[in-house]
Amino acid sequence: MTQEATARAHPNIAFIKYWGNQDEQLRIPVNSSLSMNLEGLYTETMVNWDHRLTQDSLIINSVEQSGDALKRVQTHLSALRNHIDGIEGHAKVISYNNFPMGVGIASSASSFAALTLAAVSASGQQLSESTLSSLARLGSGSASRSIPTGFVEWHKGVSHETSYAESIATPDFWDLVDVIAVVSNTHKKVGSTEGHQSANTSDLQLARIANAEKRLQDCKEALLHKDFHSFATVVEEDSNLMHSIMMTSRPPLFYWQPTSIELMHLIPEWRHEGLDVCYTLDAGPNVHCICNRIHAEEVSRRVRNISGVLDVKSAGAGRGAYLL
Amino acid sequence: MTQEATARAHPNIAFIKYWGNQDEQLRIPVNSSLSMNLEGLYTETMVNWDHRLTQDSLIINSVEQSGDALKRVQTHLSALRNHIDGIEGHAKVISYNNFPMGVGIASSASSFAALTLAAVSASGQQLSESTLSSLARLGSGSASRSIPTGFVEWHKGVSHETSYAESIATPDFWDLVDVIAVVSNTHKKVGSTEGHQSANTSDLQLARIANAEKRLQDCKEALLHKDFHSFATVVEEDSNLMHSIMMTSRPPLFYWQPTSIELMHLIPEWRHEGLDVCYTLDAGPNVHCICNRIHAEEVSRRVRNISGVLDVKSAGAGRGAYLL
Repeated sequence: MTQEATARAHPNIAFIKYWGNQDEQLRIPVNSSLSMNLEGLYTETMVNWDHRLTQDSLIINSVEQSGDALKRVQTHLSALRNHIDGIEGHAKVISYNNFPMGVGIASSASSFAALTLAAVSASGQQLSESTLSSLARLGSGSASRSIPTGFVEWHKGVSHETSYAESIATPDFWDLVDVIAVVSNTHKKVGSTEGHQSANTSDLQLARIANAEKRLQDCKEALLHKDFHSFATVVEEDSNLMHSIMMTSRPPLFYWQPTSIELMHLIPEWRHEGLDVCYTLDAGPNVHCICNRIHAEEVSRRVRNISGVLDVKSAGAGRGAYLL
Repeated sequence: MTQEATARAHPNIAFIKYWGNQDEQLRIPVNSSLSMNLEGLYTETMVNWDHRLTQDSLIINSVEQSGDALKRVQTHLSALRNHIDGIEGHAKVISYNNFPMGVGIASSASSFAALTLAAVSASGQQLSESTLSSLARLGSGSASRSIPTGFVEWHKGVSHETSYAESIATPDFWDLVDVIAVVSNTHKKVGSTEGHQSANTSDLQLARIANAEKRLQDCKEALLHKDFHSFATVVEEDSNLMHSIMMTSRPPLFYWQPTSIELMHLIPEWRHEGLDVCYTLDAGPNVHCICNRIHAEEVSRRVRNISGVLDVKSAGAGRGAYLL
C-alpha cells in the first residue's frame, strides 16, 4: 500500500452558477450547476499519510501554512478520515498552483479536487469518480466539478452521496476558450463560503432557484448542440441572476468593479458584431469571456485594450483530476 | 372661464421604486412607491385651450416639437379630454425645463405634472389633489408623485381613481439633499415606458414585488423618525432590487456604468466614515446621493473628485405642483 500520491486538478468556470446551500456543513447546494474545467491552470498536490505524524501539515507554493488555510485542509482531511475506512493517521500535504493566487481566479476548486484525489489514492483506496466528486465537495462545493472531465454537471442531490458531479462532454467536444480579464480589485472581498451563507438573506434567492433547473437544461442543450447564441443568452442571464442575489443580500455583496461593468456592456455588443463571446463572473470582479476558439485571439486583443484590465489569461476546456 | 394657465412642477427621486405596471395603458403600478420632490429643478408649462385649433401643438424650450414627444403629449391631452367634462378643443402647450434634458435627470415626472395641472386649470376645472395626481399618472407614472408636496407616497391602487400619490411630510420636515452625480452615458438607453413593460420578463420581479410594501413601510417609518441609517439601508436595497430586475429582464437592461459602480462602492464607505449619505439610481447611470444637508457639501466635493463624474447638481426637498 503506497503512502504517498500526487494529483493534479484544474479550476473550473461555471456557466450555471452555484450560490447557496441546502446544507452548509456538507455543502449540498440549492441548485445544480454546470461548468467547464480550465486547461493549463492547475493545482498539483502531494499527500503523504504518516502514522508517526501528530498533526496534518500544509505547504503551498513552498510556504508552510498556518491559520485558516491549514485549518480548512485539516478539516477536509478529517472529513476524509471519517468517510473512508482505511484512511488513518495524519498527512503531510505539499501543494503547488501554477496560476497566481489572489488575482481572483478561484483556486479552491482545483485545490480540493487535487487534495481529495491525492489523499484517497495515497491511502490505497480506489473510489468511483462520483464518490471522489462527493468527497471533494466537502472541501469546496465547486471542487466537485473539477473531478470529472471537460464539461461537467453537478447534480445538487439530497444527501452527501447523491450530490456529485459528472461529465456531460469531453474537453474536445466544443472548442470553447475562457479569456479571463483580470480586473483591478482594490476592495476587500467576501469569501465564497461566507457568501453562500448569506444567499438566503436576499428576497430574490428563491426566485433564482425556482428556474435554475430550467436554465441548466437550456444551457446543457445549447452546449450539446453547440448553439452559441442560446448558450450566451442563458450564461449571461445566470451570471446576472447570481450577482443580483449577491447585491440584494443583507449586507449586500458587490463583486462587480467599474471595469467589470464596462466589459459587461461591451461583450454583448461584440457578439452582435459577430464574435461568439459571452461573459460570466464568479464571486469576484474578473470577467470570464467565454468564446469560440476561432474568436479567442480577437477577444483577447480587445480585452487587453481596456484600461482597467491588468492581465488576460486564456484557457480551453480541461480534463478532470488525475494522478501523476 | 380662463382659457390659459401656467403651472410649475419639480421632478422627484424615488426612495422606493416604481418598476412594472398592473395596467400598462393606465400606468397602474405593481407596487406603491415613495419619493421626494426636487427643489430648484422644475418644468414650467403653459396650456392654452382654443376651440379654433384643429390639433394640439407643443413647444419645449422654444423648439416646436413633432414626432414622439408631441404624440405623447397629444395622447395625454386626449386622456384629459376623456376623463374630464368641460375640457374640449385643442391646446397650445409651451413648456420650459430649467434643467438640461438628456443628462439623465428624468423630466417626464415634472413635465406631465405641470402639463396636467395647467391643462386642467386652463379649462376652468378645480380638481382635488388626488384626482390631479391620478390624471398626471396617465402621462407618466412618476408624474403622479410630483403633484403633492415634499415627501410623497404613491398608492398603487387597483383602478384609475385609487392609484394616486399623497404627501406624507412637507419639504421642511427632514433636511435631505439629493446630490446628483451626472455620469457619462455613452450607451443608448431604453426608455422607462418600454422598460416597465419588460419587468415581467425577469424571473425575479414577483419576488421584488412581494416585499415592496414592507420596504415602503420601513422606509416611511425611517423617514418619519429621521433615522438615517435605517433609511439608507432600505433605499439602497430597493435600488439594487430594481436594477436586479432590469439586468435579468429579457433582453437585459443595464443602466449602470463604470462610474455608477464606483460610486456604489464608495458611498457606503463614506457612510461608515460618518457621513449621512446613501445612493439610489433610477433608469439611468446617474447616482443620486441622498444625504443630510449638513453633509451635502462634503458629499458634493467628494463626488466632483471622481473622474467619471461630468457634473453635480444638488436639490433639497421641493413642493408639489403649483399654478403661477
